[in-house]
Amino acid sequence: MNPVKVGVLGLGTVGGGTVYILQHNAKEIARRAGRGIVVTHACAKEIKKNLPYDTDSIKITEQLDDVVTNPEIDIVVELIGGTTLAKEMVLKAIAHGKHVVTANKALIATCGNEIFAAAQEKGVMIAFEAAVAGGIPIIKAIREGLSANRIQWVAGIINGTSNFILTEMRDKGREFGDVLAEAQRLGYAEADPTFDIEGVDAAHKLTIIASIAFGIPLQFDKVYKEGITKITPEDVIYADTLGYRIKHLGITRWTDKGVELRVHPTFIPCRRLIANVDGVMNAVAVQADAVGQTLYYGAGAGATPTGSAVVADLIDVVRALTTDPENRVPHLAFQPDSLLSDLPILPIEEIETAYYLRMHALDKTGVLAQVATILSQHGISIEAVIQKEPTNKAASVPIVMLTHKVVEKHLNQAIAQIEALEGIEGQVARIRIETL
Amino acid sequence: MNPVKVGVLGLGTVGGGTVYILQHNAKEIARRAGRGIVVTHACAKEIKKNLPYDTDSIKITEQLDDVVTNPEIDIVVELIGGTTLAKEMVLKAIAHGKHVVTANKALIATCGNEIFAAAQEKGVMIAFEAAVAGGIPIIKAIREGLSANRIQWVAGIINGTSNFILTEMRDKGREFGDVLAEAQRLGYAEADPTFDIEGVDAAHKLTIIASIAFGIPLQFDKVYKEGITKITPEDVIYADTLGYRIKHLGITRWTDKGVELRVHPTFIPCRRLIANVDGVMNAVAVQADAVGQTLYYGAGAGATPTGSAVVADLIDVVRALTTDPENRVPHLAFQPDSLLSDLPILPIEEIETAYYLRMHALDKTGVLAQVATILSQHGISIEAVIQKEPTNKAASVPIVMLTHKVVEKHLNQAIAQIEALEGIEGQVARIRIETL
Repeated sequence: MNPVKVGVLGLGTVGGGTVYILQHNAKEIARRAGRGIVVTHACAKEIKKNLPYDTDSIKITEQLDDVVTNPEIDIVVELIGGTTLAKEMVLKAIAHGKHVVTANKALIATCGNEIFAAAQEKGVMIAFEAAVAGGIPIIKAIREGLSANRIQWVAGIINGTSNFILTEMRDKGREFGDVLAEAQRLGYAEADPTFDIEGVDAAHKLTIIASIAFGIPLQFDKVYKEGITKITPEDVIYADTLGYRIKHLGITRWTDKGVELRVHPTFIPCRRLIANVDGVMNAVAVQADAVGQTLYYGAGAGATPTGSAVVADLIDVVRALTTDPENRVPHLAFQPDSLLSDLPILPIEEIETAYYLRMHALDKTGVLAQVATILSQHGISIEAVIQKEPTNKAASVPIVMLTHKVVEKHLNQAIAQIEALEGIEGQVARIRIETL
Repeated sequence: MNPVKVGVLGLGTVGGGTVYILQHNAKEIARRAGRGIVVTHACAKEIKKNLPYDTDSIKITEQLDDVVTNPEIDIVVELIGGTTLAKEMVLKAIAHGKHVVTANKALIATCGNEIFAAAQEKGVMIAFEAAVAGGIPIIKAIREGLSANRIQWVAGIINGTSNFILTEMRDKGREFGDVLAEAQRLGYAEADPTFDIEGVDAAHKLTIIASIAFGIPLQFDKVYKEGITKITPEDVIYADTLGYRIKHLGITRWTDKGVELRVHPTFIPCRRLIANVDGVMNAVAVQADAVGQTLYYGAGAGATPTGSAVVADLIDVVRALTTDPENRVPHLAFQPDSLLSDLPILPIEEIETAYYLRMHALDKTGVLAQVATILSQHGISIEAVIQKEPTNKAASVPIVMLTHKVVEKHLNQAIAQIEALEGIEGQVARIRIETL
């Protein structure tokens, strides 16, 4: 059979990785797919010298339209990034009957509903394995591997930069800002790291995970987002002392009242496998009714790990070319007409979890009793308390508590009262706890 | 669309789990697959009362042929087990144009080449996700999720019984035989546990993994098999002391000389994620050129975990019904005409690994020097040594060593010489080390 012709938009890190894999593993890929998959066109502003892949066989253009509307091309790989030009090009590719593979999590999370509708209309496929957790085939695992199950929750370390920073803070007792600066030097974090450290990137990925887990439309604007900027070395040490690790998780859970959709730092018992996923690595744990808990671990970013997911998608698309469009795996795992559009997304105030609380007391004996009384009045049970002797010079002494489960709005009320106490200095720090 | 009709051979643990899931999650499954999947016929000797699923809607028969040759049935689920009757029935189902889903690892590992050839001839699908690592979608991950990669090695905890026994031995300092008896009482281990504890079950699964990882025919008879029966509480303690865990692994690795295919207890550094997979759980680590290392964790056995894999396969088969047979995912991941039949499988003597060695010396000072000399003469470097003071009553003192990498036949020669030393009592125990 003739090779399938692919056009790539963007020859940066992931684009380069994708072309490299398609060339370097061409024989293995053809042995699997039954036919070759060849990049014939690519759109790039400039081509660097000494690339690890051959560009002579690729027609390089600066015009996106040369690829997107090119009748020779079967599949377009979108690696432009962002949600403006990328969206325009993906919709144009669809309109021209091209299948699209993308690694663009922001695009899928914010414009996916519109893109999938357009694709369905045209009978083309949009594949986006690379958009979540890089090289880990987590979209495939949830969408196909666990298709027998009612999924109960998914919790993932899905931002490598945040995980790298938290790991360094724990292993070396470093400050957040210090590690962030190093991560930027190493290229793990962008010059503008907001998307990573404020939880926006993780929220994009969680939006996609929740949709394919529960069969709901993509609802990025409803994700609760909290990053790791407020985590202190103190918190990291207390977590260890209490038998926990702090990880930045994306969590989505099916409840009777609606779907939880939240991204925030989380205490996890240190014996859980996911608590031991360190550095830039990603991992996603899935709890489902038939299979129980499964976990998927691997590199969440990088040229060839992300390229691995892009190329796997290309092979999947090639295989499904002859499949009746109605029988293909639906974009969001469930048939488009069966998505649950009315299912509420719970506001963070309605979510029930346990908490780690850290506060500074000026007068330790009386204050502890006052704090305990306030918590009790709001129906919040205390699971553990650490209160150390004050050091000589310190004006205040830290009090650390773990609570049992409580609805967040009740905790908020309690915290407001605690912060108003004369004996409490400053704000109460809180980190949600998940036993997973 | 009309529901797809399924006939199930065997309503035991996995058969029951499969029917339960198809009924209990019928709505979710139809939302995903776009049509219903219904068990209309089942073959069973007797039907118990108070089952958690409805049997009134299923035509129960004692005659396998009533299912296998039934023109009403689209897909046959084989859960008979074994390799005689099961093989006959699977081949008959294929001959009658049925697609087959099976959880039978022994059947696929030993008769898969013949079965897939028959299926290809008839244009039907054989799906076997449930045959390896129960509910973990590892076949799908390797065969489709990592299809861009050259896979370098796969190492898995793929026998839950062995992992349960090793975990208990470590956590509670118990003896092998004692834990085995308990595992049998708990139903984790069969009355005849040979397949589990001698590595046969793991070898079946490893055979399948190696084929889909490297594109080689199934070659069960070439797997090196070693079980956990010789592991002592002493070994477990030394492993801990040295920073390792003992796990029973199936390992397959691509080398320039051929493919390694081996099942044996293994020292793994305790910081590796897979070293922390405990109890009856399974996990498979895959090293591949583009994506690096990924890991897949979950329940390797049980009614609904295994049923989860069977039902996922059913959904996959339903989706591929309209796919041109040549474009379907090949049974062994690679196109049948591109399987590497000539690739040698390395005998265990040719494999290079590091080793843990434990021996008992009668006269510690001189013997250690003699042992070190013998190892050195065979080009074997020592990485670590533990030799403790003899207790008052002991006639001998244990010497424990970790070696650097060595080809196994050279180690065998050295061990033969060490065992012949007058100062060494009994045999030298050895466990292979993998850093993964």
